[in-house]
Amino acid sequence: MRPEAVAALAEEAARVGNPSSVHQAGRAARKVVEEAREVVADRLGAHPTEVVFTSGGTEADNLAVRGLGRPADGAVTPRRVVVSAVEHHAVLDPAAWLAAHEGAELVLLPVDDAGTVPLSALEEALDGARGPGAVVSVMWANNEVGTVQPVAGLAAVARERGAFVHADAVQAVGRLPVDFAAAGLDAMTVSAHKLGGPVGVGALVVRRGVPVEPLTHGGGQERGLRSGTVPAALIRSFAVALDLATAERQAEAARVAGLRDALVAGVLREVPDAVVRGPWPGTAAGALARLPGNAHLTFPGCDSEVLLFGLDQAGVAASAGSACQAGVQQASHVLAAMGVPAADARGAVRFSLGWTSTAADVAAVTDVIGEVVARARAAAHLG
Amino acid sequence: MRPEAVAALAEEAARVGNPSSVHQAGRAARKVVEEAREVVADRLGAHPTEVVFTSGGTEADNLAVRGLGRPADGAVTPRRVVVSAVEHHAVLDPAAWLAAHEGAELVLLPVDDAGTVPLSALEEALDGARGPGAVVSVMWANNEVGTVQPVAGLAAVARERGAFVHADAVQAVGRLPVDFAAAGLDAMTVSAHKLGGPVGVGALVVRRGVPVEPLTHGGGQERGLRSGTVPAALIRSFAVALDLATAERQAEAARVAGLRDALVAGVLREVPDAVVRGPWPGTAAGALARLPGNAHLTFPGCDSEVLLFGLDQAGVAASAGSACQAGVQQASHVLAAMGVPAADARGAVRFSLGWTSTAADVAAVTDVIGEVVARARAAAHLG
Repeated sequence: MRPEAVAALAEEAARVGNPSSVHQAGRAARKVVEEAREVVADRLGAHPTEVVFTSGGTEADNLAVRGLGRPADGAVTPRRVVVSAVEHHAVLDPAAWLAAHEGAELVLLPVDDAGTVPLSALEEALDGARGPGAVVSVMWANNEVGTVQPVAGLAAVARERGAFVHADAVQAVGRLPVDFAAAGLDAMTVSAHKLGGPVGVGALVVRRGVPVEPLTHGGGQERGLRSGTVPAALIRSFAVALDLATAERQAEAARVAGLRDALVAGVLREVPDAVVRGPWPGTAAGALARLPGNAHLTFPGCDSEVLLFGLDQAGVAASAGSACQAGVQQASHVLAAMGVPAADARGAVRFSLGWTSTAADVAAVTDVIGEVVARARAAAHLG
Repeated sequence: MRPEAVAALAEEAARVGNPSSVHQAGRAARKVVEEAREVVADRLGAHPTEVVFTSGGTEADNLAVRGLGRPADGAVTPRRVVVSAVEHHAVLDPAAWLAAHEGAELVLLPVDDAGTVPLSALEEALDGARGPGAVVSVMWANNEVGTVQPVAGLAAVARERGAFVHADAVQAVGRLPVDFAAAGLDAMTVSAHKLGGPVGVGALVVRRGVPVEPLTHGGGQERGLRSGTVPAALIRSFAVALDLATAERQAEAARVAGLRDALVAGVLREVPDAVVRGPWPGTAAGALARLPGNAHLTFPGCDSEVLLFGLDQAGVAASAGSACQAGVQQASHVLAAMGVPAADARGAVRFSLGWTSTAADVAAVTDVIGEVVARARAAAHLG
């Protein structure tokens, strides 16, 4: 977390007041929340009334996939759910839940070898006489391989065909230029902790006039879309982090992309047969369609668990798939959708660089990666 | 918030690490979460594997009412939902949602004039050949009038009849002796901010072996019951607050009840026709079946909005119903269920005393209440 966001969290947490109470302390807390809402909306290209604070990205994704386009008090009717095959489980799993529990028709959009959803795939999924009620969800940028999707293009395809469209922008905000209104989306998910804010808060941005059925019911906070005492301290801290992240974004993106490129070059120098996955020079998408801080490589003949263990021993924190799936020995659904053979996907490692990353971190990886890979290969031969 | 809980929140927030990651920072965060889980479980009379952290009481209530007794991956089948008429909206509203969206049979349990659910009412609601699938939810203690329910008795009635039983213990924990196992419950809701912890975290305690269908789907954290990055800092702060609240509970309850009694006596001295609502000497339940810090009075001929405004001007923070419903000009469903006429319910004011309350706070109320009520009555005559 950014120190400024920690300070805001601690300062606000020490105050009293429920933002829904009418007394003085309650009104003060409400003011904090509404000022934060204005900052969050402004930095995301949205109107304050479009920001619905949630407990984080997973809740916002679930709220969008299950609720978008449905009136708050309407009957549950089966719908068509169109999501890319490389979505986070917070989108894939509620989509699968709708299919299993409500008879929704689930369509998985294919991706190319860089992880990009072709516009034609969405056109094909939505064309034909399928009636109303379709919801589309395609992430702005992928958490594993960093692929940046053509969100505005996909949104236009969806809206021309009367479908509601949501993007999980958890990875994109603070790293890429994100403008909700300009993208033409109906809803967008944001998480505070991915941009230096606290874990436990995020938002679903919902375009004005678009109905959303809430996931939970109760006190009716957040215009009835998200009941529960509004966490003023978390929300203020979120706004502080988002403000800093967007202010520094352009310079930071260039700095972090430079570090990332140095890391990839260094790794390929030490391990020449490692393969960069996702958009990169030589793929149709090109390196620009990739998150600046994302480096994803597969190491032939290695098991990623062994690689991560070796890196961890050397003080390097890396991941295989997403952290949510850590410890689960399962091939990445993202790599599978990109057509990466299962044998190659086994040796996947993702390095994530951010605002705390330095050239020393890059050197720490390139210093040890050759040895770590050699040991992983030896282990594979023994196994 | 308690200063110790603020300090724990700030300290932990400044660290790095996703509790679901396998690298060193992730394991350190996981350790923090698991140690906190042990403290929370111990103080609530539960086993650590029975604690499911949520974003707060509303989410936990929704999870229980909608999911309790349903397998995680099972089909949604209509159920019988039996809740007391004085529940918080976080229980009432998901129960109503089940009736509207899934064809659930909703039964509202009546209460007596002190707000207590008679065991016979639950027996009557559950007896007869109604098949499996019933879920009962009765709050441990009421947020408006402070009534403490006979939770263990109600749980026994429910479980003897094969129903799953949940209690919203948000108001009870830290104020009353709460032992999950001894109460015989299947599930229990707790919120951190009601006991000096942060807003934005809580827990649903779920008895081992009892199935629960999750509300949201994704990374599969919290044994699949609550997906989303686990907020280590909020959870540690929650455990710190709960630990302090339970350690001080007995002494604090006596101190706060003394202040509360002085407040009520002082108010009745200044405004002799004010009426104490909820358990009190003279009602069947008696004053002991009431939250120690709760004072609820109705002031004949007054409008509670006017009373709250007058108190607020004098620096006294009070409430009419629950804060969640603040600003909504609607009679309290709790008072209505207790048989309080609507005209009397209009002049309701709830004073909540807690660990920060002092004799000076009591004096501040009794000093101004006579004048505030006189002005409210004058306003009513003008209106």
